[in-house]
Amino acid sequence: MKSISVTTENIIKVSGTESTETNDTLAVEEPLEISMSIPSAKPPLIGKNISITMRTPGNDAELALGFLFTEGIITAPDEVFMVDHHGNTADVILKNNTSADLTKLERHFYTSSSCGVCGKASIDSVRTVRRLDPQQTDFKVPAKLLQTLPARLREEQAVFESTGGLHAAALFNLEGKLLELREDVGRHNALDKLIGAAFQEDRLPLNKHLLLLSGRASFELIQKAAMAGISFVMAVGAPSSLAVELAGEFNMTLIGFLSGERFNIYQGANRIEL
Amino acid sequence: MKSISVTTENIIKVSGTESTETNDTLAVEEPLEISMSIPSAKPPLIGKNISITMRTPGNDAELALGFLFTEGIITAPDEVFMVDHHGNTADVILKNNTSADLTKLERHFYTSSSCGVCGKASIDSVRTVRRLDPQQTDFKVPAKLLQTLPARLREEQAVFESTGGLHAAALFNLEGKLLELREDVGRHNALDKLIGAAFQEDRLPLNKHLLLLSGRASFELIQKAAMAGISFVMAVGAPSSLAVELAGEFNMTLIGFLSGERFNIYQGANRIEL
Repeated sequence: MKSISVTTENIIKVSGTESTETNDTLAVEEPLEISMSIPSAKPPLIGKNISITMRTPGNDAELALGFLFTEGIITAPDEVFMVDHHGNTADVILKNNTSADLTKLERHFYTSSSCGVCGKASIDSVRTVRRLDPQQTDFKVPAKLLQTLPARLREEQAVFESTGGLHAAALFNLEGKLLELREDVGRHNALDKLIGAAFQEDRLPLNKHLLLLSGRASFELIQKAAMAGISFVMAVGAPSSLAVELAGEFNMTLIGFLSGERFNIYQGANRIEL
Repeated sequence: MKSISVTTENIIKVSGTESTETNDTLAVEEPLEISMSIPSAKPPLIGKNISITMRTPGNDAELALGFLFTEGIITAPDEVFMVDHHGNTADVILKNNTSADLTKLERHFYTSSSCGVCGKASIDSVRTVRRLDPQQTDFKVPAKLLQTLPARLREEQAVFESTGGLHAAALFNLEGKLLELREDVGRHNALDKLIGAAFQEDRLPLNKHLLLLSGRASFELIQKAAMAGISFVMAVGAPSSLAVELAGEFNMTLIGFLSGERFNIYQGANRIEL
């Protein structure tokens, strides 16, 4: 399933006063236009533009599904007839039985550059997410296990590390086994791909899993994780204030600055055996 | 002008088998709703929602102006009557004489989360940007000077380094003097704030300047720099494939992985004295 694009470029490498011509590996960034069709709607909805995202090509169907799911527009894989994917376009075609929330499309009309899921409408939409049974996320993980995960992530990223330009989102089970990894120039895309893969295979909610993010934890990423039923999020970088706030509100565990032996617990220490 | 918000949070710090309760400093992330009004239009345009962006509060008027300018919607400060800024909203009120390109608003109707300036419509809009006279950007900077800039950036960021969660965009003159620095949880916001400040003071185009980005260089950031007439961009992190391509097309210099003595030249080596 994994297919990430990299490309090479002639560059000049400078070190002190020396410079040499060489090849460098770059992460590919290209636009993906995500649209949605409901041919059986009255009137039929055909190729309605939902989003243009700059992404690293690969796993585009997962990305489109993950995006529509974490935005609250679609809710279950049996609503989807197919994803019609060509080059830089992905049209998600829904079946007759869809309960797709078209009102949710409206708010895309004034989202931006920065984040499509960050306005008040969006915060509200997360708040209406079906809450998980607290018992379902009542597990404990040893701190010792968490300390091994960044190295596991880096092992898997080895091939792409050369570019230095890809964010990763990785899913582990409670024993620390790496189940799934997705990479992208955009961290929200990496997570949408990961969640889209689980959506496609009807593996949601991911309530017995650990999510590891290679970068910082923003509000948007915590919101996407919450939509997927994930209650345990670790980031190699810093969390933002709103990420910590939202994680608290959803009774999630949020760890930041996870690297080797050290990490900070921002929320939900009850799930960690210290 | 600079006012960045940080907040503190009680956390548990884990190192090996030890854990201690302590305070941690977080970068604040909150939504800013950017809207635009043209009271004298027929019919009047009042508080038209343009974008909701997750940003670090501070320099919000600059952010709103920089965003509208780099999106190609407004072009000169004398079009702007005032920015009406309260809490998490900023309404850019335009004068009678505006030439604001309202057709550019349309494409916001299907931009996303990931990037508002990344679709085909947007690539086209950059391509129609008034090209700078090549002679205006015909300067040379010694490699030795560039090698000192990351340290200068870090000095200025010292206060906020504690959060580990802020991106920075910094403007230097050709002698390597730091003129301006803006920070934000979103790197596109940091750059919009920087460009918005120059817009406000009628200092555009920034064609005799060096731009340093604390993170990676994406297509979106190169596009914003191009709109502001910047021809020299350095990033501490990796560039994406499309960033390199766009920089080439606009005859810009693009440097990546700038840290201490080392850097890579991806485009425009003619502006660097090796």
